[in-house]
Amino acid sequence: MNVAVVGATGYTGGELLRLLTQHPEVTVTCVTSEQSAHRPLVERLPFLRGHYSLILEPFDPDAISEKAECVFLAFPHTQAMTPTRRLMDAGKKVIDLSADFRLRSPRTYQKWYKAPHLQTALLKKAVYGLPEIYRKKIAGGCLVANPGCYPTGALLPLYPFLKAGVVDSTQAIVVDAKSGISGAGRSPSAATHFPEAHDGFSAYQIGTHRHLPEIVQEITRMSRGNGAGRTRQTQRVLFTPHLLPVNRGILTTIYLPLKQRLSQKNLDDLLDDYQGEPFIRRVSDTPNLAHVRGSNFCDLAAFPTDAGRCATLISAIDNLGKGAAGQAIQNMNVMMGWKESLGLSAPGFFP
Amino acid sequence: MNVAVVGATGYTGGELLRLLTQHPEVTVTCVTSEQSAHRPLVERLPFLRGHYSLILEPFDPDAISEKAECVFLAFPHTQAMTPTRRLMDAGKKVIDLSADFRLRSPRTYQKWYKAPHLQTALLKKAVYGLPEIYRKKIAGGCLVANPGCYPTGALLPLYPFLKAGVVDSTQAIVVDAKSGISGAGRSPSAATHFPEAHDGFSAYQIGTHRHLPEIVQEITRMSRGNGAGRTRQTQRVLFTPHLLPVNRGILTTIYLPLKQRLSQKNLDDLLDDYQGEPFIRRVSDTPNLAHVRGSNFCDLAAFPTDAGRCATLISAIDNLGKGAAGQAIQNMNVMMGWKESLGLSAPGFFP
Amino acid sequence: MNVAVVGATGYTGGELLRLLTQHPEVTVTCVTSEQSAHRPLVERLPFLRGHYSLILEPFDPDAISEKAECVFLAFPHTQAMTPTRRLMDAGKKVIDLSADFRLRSPRTYQKWYKAPHLQTALLKKAVYGLPEIYRKKIAGGCLVANPGCYPTGALLPLYPFLKAGVVDSTQAIVVDAKSGISGAGRSPSAATHFPEAHDGFSAYQIGTHRHLPEIVQEITRMSRGNGAGRTRQTQRVLFTPHLLPVNRGILTTIYLPLKQRLSQKNLDDLLDDYQGEPFIRRVSDTPNLAHVRGSNFCDLAAFPTDAGRCATLISAIDNLGKGAAGQAIQNMNVMMGWKESLGLSAPGFFP
Amino acid sequence: MNVAVVGATGYTGGELLRLLTQHPEVTVTCVTSEQSAHRPLVERLPFLRGHYSLILEPFDPDAISEKAECVFLAFPHTQAMTPTRRLMDAGKKVIDLSADFRLRSPRTYQKWYKAPHLQTALLKKAVYGLPEIYRKKIAGGCLVANPGCYPTGALLPLYPFLKAGVVDSTQAIVVDAKSGISGAGRSPSAATHFPEAHDGFSAYQIGTHRHLPEIVQEITRMSRGNGAGRTRQTQRVLFTPHLLPVNRGILTTIYLPLKQRLSQKNLDDLLDDYQGEPFIRRVSDTPNLAHVRGSNFCDLAAFPTDAGRCATLISAIDNLGKGAAGQAIQNMNVMMGWKESLGLSAPGFFP
Repeated sequence: MNVAVVGATGYTGGELLRLLTQHPEVTVTCVTSEQSAHRPLVERLPFLRGHYSLILEPFDPDAISEKAECVFLAFPHTQAMTPTRRLMDAGKKVIDLSADFRLRSPRTYQKWYKAPHLQTALLKKAVYGLPEIYRKKIAGGCLVANPGCYPTGALLPLYPFLKAGVVDSTQAIVVDAKSGISGAGRSPSAATHFPEAHDGFSAYQIGTHRHLPEIVQEITRMSRGNGAGRTRQTQRVLFTPHLLPVNRGILTTIYLPLKQRLSQKNLDDLLDDYQGEPFIRRVSDTPNLAHVRGSNFCDLAAFPTDAGRCATLISAIDNLGKGAAGQAIQNMNVMMGWKESLGLSAPGFFP
Repeated sequence: MNVAVVGATGYTGGELLRLLTQHPEVTVTCVTSEQSAHRPLVERLPFLRGHYSLILEPFDPDAISEKAECVFLAFPHTQAMTPTRRLMDAGKKVIDLSADFRLRSPRTYQKWYKAPHLQTALLKKAVYGLPEIYRKKIAGGCLVANPGCYPTGALLPLYPFLKAGVVDSTQAIVVDAKSGISGAGRSPSAATHFPEAHDGFSAYQIGTHRHLPEIVQEITRMSRGNGAGRTRQTQRVLFTPHLLPVNRGILTTIYLPLKQRLSQKNLDDLLDDYQGEPFIRRVSDTPNLAHVRGSNFCDLAAFPTDAGRCATLISAIDNLGKGAAGQAIQNMNVMMGWKESLGLSAPGFFP
Repeated sequence: MNVAVVGATGYTGGELLRLLTQHPEVTVTCVTSEQSAHRPLVERLPFLRGHYSLILEPFDPDAISEKAECVFLAFPHTQAMTPTRRLMDAGKKVIDLSADFRLRSPRTYQKWYKAPHLQTALLKKAVYGLPEIYRKKIAGGCLVANPGCYPTGALLPLYPFLKAGVVDSTQAIVVDAKSGISGAGRSPSAATHFPEAHDGFSAYQIGTHRHLPEIVQEITRMSRGNGAGRTRQTQRVLFTPHLLPVNRGILTTIYLPLKQRLSQKNLDDLLDDYQGEPFIRRVSDTPNLAHVRGSNFCDLAAFPTDAGRCATLISAIDNLGKGAAGQAIQNMNVMMGWKESLGLSAPGFFP
Repeated sequence: MNVAVVGATGYTGGELLRLLTQHPEVTVTCVTSEQSAHRPLVERLPFLRGHYSLILEPFDPDAISEKAECVFLAFPHTQAMTPTRRLMDAGKKVIDLSADFRLRSPRTYQKWYKAPHLQTALLKKAVYGLPEIYRKKIAGGCLVANPGCYPTGALLPLYPFLKAGVVDSTQAIVVDAKSGISGAGRSPSAATHFPEAHDGFSAYQIGTHRHLPEIVQEITRMSRGNGAGRTRQTQRVLFTPHLLPVNRGILTTIYLPLKQRLSQKNLDDLLDDYQGEPFIRRVSDTPNLAHVRGSNFCDLAAFPTDAGRCATLISAIDNLGKGAAGQAIQNMNVMMGWKESLGLSAPGFFP
């Protein structure tokens, strides 16, 4: 199948192109970049020299339509709505890596992204692209809203517990997340200037990060599954992202209040609900960014704390892998009915 | 005043010696190391070349007694008890940087450090060396138990809130802490081998770290101050330490459940209780390890979250500074009745 | 083909196992480790969880003989000689990643490795495994001495110039090399303890590193090719390795005195001698470790300096890739008559 | 004495302000920044909170003249010439940290800095601020051209050898230098964006870096001292700078061709020419950036290589210390006739 990568020169684009070299069913026929249009792709992504000879193009839905059947859209937030519409009108499958189709409510979208949603009709068609949860819907879909990196790291460990109905929903869930700096994108800024970020560490956007409503939306949907029903209140979530001086990875530490005391075995059994999932690994030690770097894995562990009244959950993902490009390819595989690990079968990177 | 540094070749010892070069009242007359005895100090700490010409000695309380009036003891945990006794019998002031005199209860000590406490009589004389809280006791003391690095980073932000009685003590306090690798000491190990730790990040000792009982002990004492009285139950604390790929610093993110909703102004006012403290800085942005590196400062900020029902507190310290050597010198200054910032007046290091 | 990886738990072993998951002709049937025998492989290499279910075995040539046709030997130097002999007697192909069969002269070996060579007969059968230079010999061989990481980084840029006879051999060649810390192996040590190595940088073993005689041997052989003949004197080489605070990569800066003044075009033309080589990329900017990380590429550039009397050559490799495991697999492919890029076709990693 | 720091918000400005807090004779009365004028200094340099309450001002020579007797000028290159003139006309002592007064020849300046020199008359008054070499001239001067960071790292190890006349000047001197990223300044750029620079390493501006003519000028002057006289040819120098993923430090590896074979003792004796210098340390192991970080030291070592025909010299400095701010303060001390180590007596930072 021919695919296009729109916004190819960022870190997510580069990771998509890296992984797609190993995908047996896919040929990348089109790469776009507004800033570097008409330049060789490898000039902007020199690590791909020898792998691609494509020239970067400006974004043009008609041109893409002729060249590709499936499009990975890595535009900045608020800029993906209309291009998605154009590509879908042309009958293409779209995997949107921006946030533009993740939030079900246009009002919530507008509140957090400071822009009106311009394609609300498409919101109903969009499927939230967490295959471990929405696999069936993704398989039938033609527009996938690829999840945010922080929500992926938070939701995967939470899912078995919310589904099983063991969470004390009267208390807040604490999500303390730490992300590598590639998550901030490829544009230089003061906060990501090497001498500022190196040997530094801090929280940012405390209680105000845009991934919070996305996490809350999905927790709420997960909880409904266990019979809490439509009338259920929104789950209170305390979310603090931190900027970690590494290139890749998100480690998420979650403090989950439980309705009843649970043992280590109880927690392990709940996580083992994921057995058979190709990209979830329950680990018996503590998840470490070093062990998922470059892969599509999400490593998970749960520990009983506060005498069993709380579960401390830990997940490790590569923010560019399971948190972005890897998950996007997994979603494509599900949409196309292919084996879910096509193009994603290589291990990560160590050290 | 002549001082000795026992266990001089570790990172804490090195930081003590670095800072003491700038102390106008102190001369270092004795440095000890069991492994490197009889070698020049600067052979093991080359960054001090040109500053010290001392020769490392094996530990000998009698020899130290002759040379020094005050001793910084940087022995490993469980090895400081008897040396402290010997030095105190000789009339020396001792600042113990191990954990041996931090826990008030010998039973708790034995439970967490897997060794009986050999000097329980001294426990009553020992003062917990957080000058911002115990300044008066330290001033009259002759044995200071210098606090652990994690407890320092957790207790300083918590103190104003616990003292003011605004904490909902029926819920657990979450303490999510991230420490630079110098906190693990100078002995090589698999976890601290560069290619394993670099670009890695993980939690460790979840719910089982020895600094947990220290944090709980002090939170309990702080809470009593507000009238909760002797009968008060132990505060539930969820503590997760993480290993951060930087050399120095501890960033602590605390989720503090509140009895009543508090605003940003309320929180700032509570932190402003520290006004006049020479080493506490309330900051209006988010504390960053990069801004306290090499200093004795503790940077603090508090944010209302969960619609004001929770305070997200953040502190940043240098684990070798306010978390160890800097605080030890501050304690010496308080003990001696000197200006508290002697030897600690230099800014940190940026970048 | 079934292969064994002897010494599987080090960084080179891990990289071999990572790459071999992608090799279409190979199945890993045996992994050994003395220290971790009888433990699951993934316990020591957690990033491989989900990819291997092998159990580590102690080294046993007979057992290996039954399970594998080709053996990657990642023993420490001086410990590979006898095991190689045993495996070759059993008719196996061996790719030895130690230094034990790299030096042609047993006397030189003994001088630099402080141990007598125990299998001098095998030295004649061993082929130095730089496929770009010795491809034909490797194809017919059954024992490959996989080159050292520093020699690979030095020899690949030098080869076209030495072959063309443009080097002024009366002057010394300066090889200033900088290696990531994985090159020092997986055993913790003082110099590779995170807080010592992080933010540090230094040279080591100036003029005394064991890769020096290997570089000199191969330069001398390369020079003979241009008619300098058997009587040619040994080339003088100044080699300084440095330890770089990154995990992977060797950047080598070479100052090459020229017989005659050469222009940028002359230099580029000489490097273009490598055209068609699958793993050599001449780049027009400066080679950067970030662009070869995780790949088997060697990026090369040459710059006329000293008014054309000198060529400043720069190469970038991944010390675990082209400098060790990647090159070993390339050698296996050549030995087996397979396409040279089997198992090595994935790009590196960025960022 | 009252001093001003012009261009206070860059890394050099921050380091000057850090060090000046410890200077017993100096009060900083004025700090300037064009971009952040009228904002509190500590807003841009938060690590200095608690140390300064100054407000940043736009540059105004008249205002500065009223407030300060000595000015540290940290303007970008080509922008320091006229401000220097204005301040000198007002009778101020100026220490210029730009390159504008380092090159003696206006023609060379114009060639390398692409701008005409606007104050050629001042060039004759300017003293090159390497106190170890030009101490007497600095003492009598009122305009110091503070040396570049790379030239400082190259010239200090070379000086004793050039002065002693042992260098074979018919061959090129190789200067292979590696600098921490703070040397690139505080403005974000693609090359210094964390994910690009972290785990990366590369050379840049090979043979074209602006510090090359500065190094050549000073080598030539040093060589004249040994009787080579005015007619001596320009020394050929091969200079390659590299960007190192650390915040601070320059390690310089120099390959120095010798007229005659020299032993380790000969080399050590030549370096011991520096005995009594407060900021030069000859070390017997290899200099390491980790040991000079945050200090004004230059660590030096020399090794006989190529059978004694070459000396491999290594120096380590902190590019912000001896390579910029520290040396500037040392120069001020010399100009004022103060003890040379005032404000510079604290050790560096380890780890």
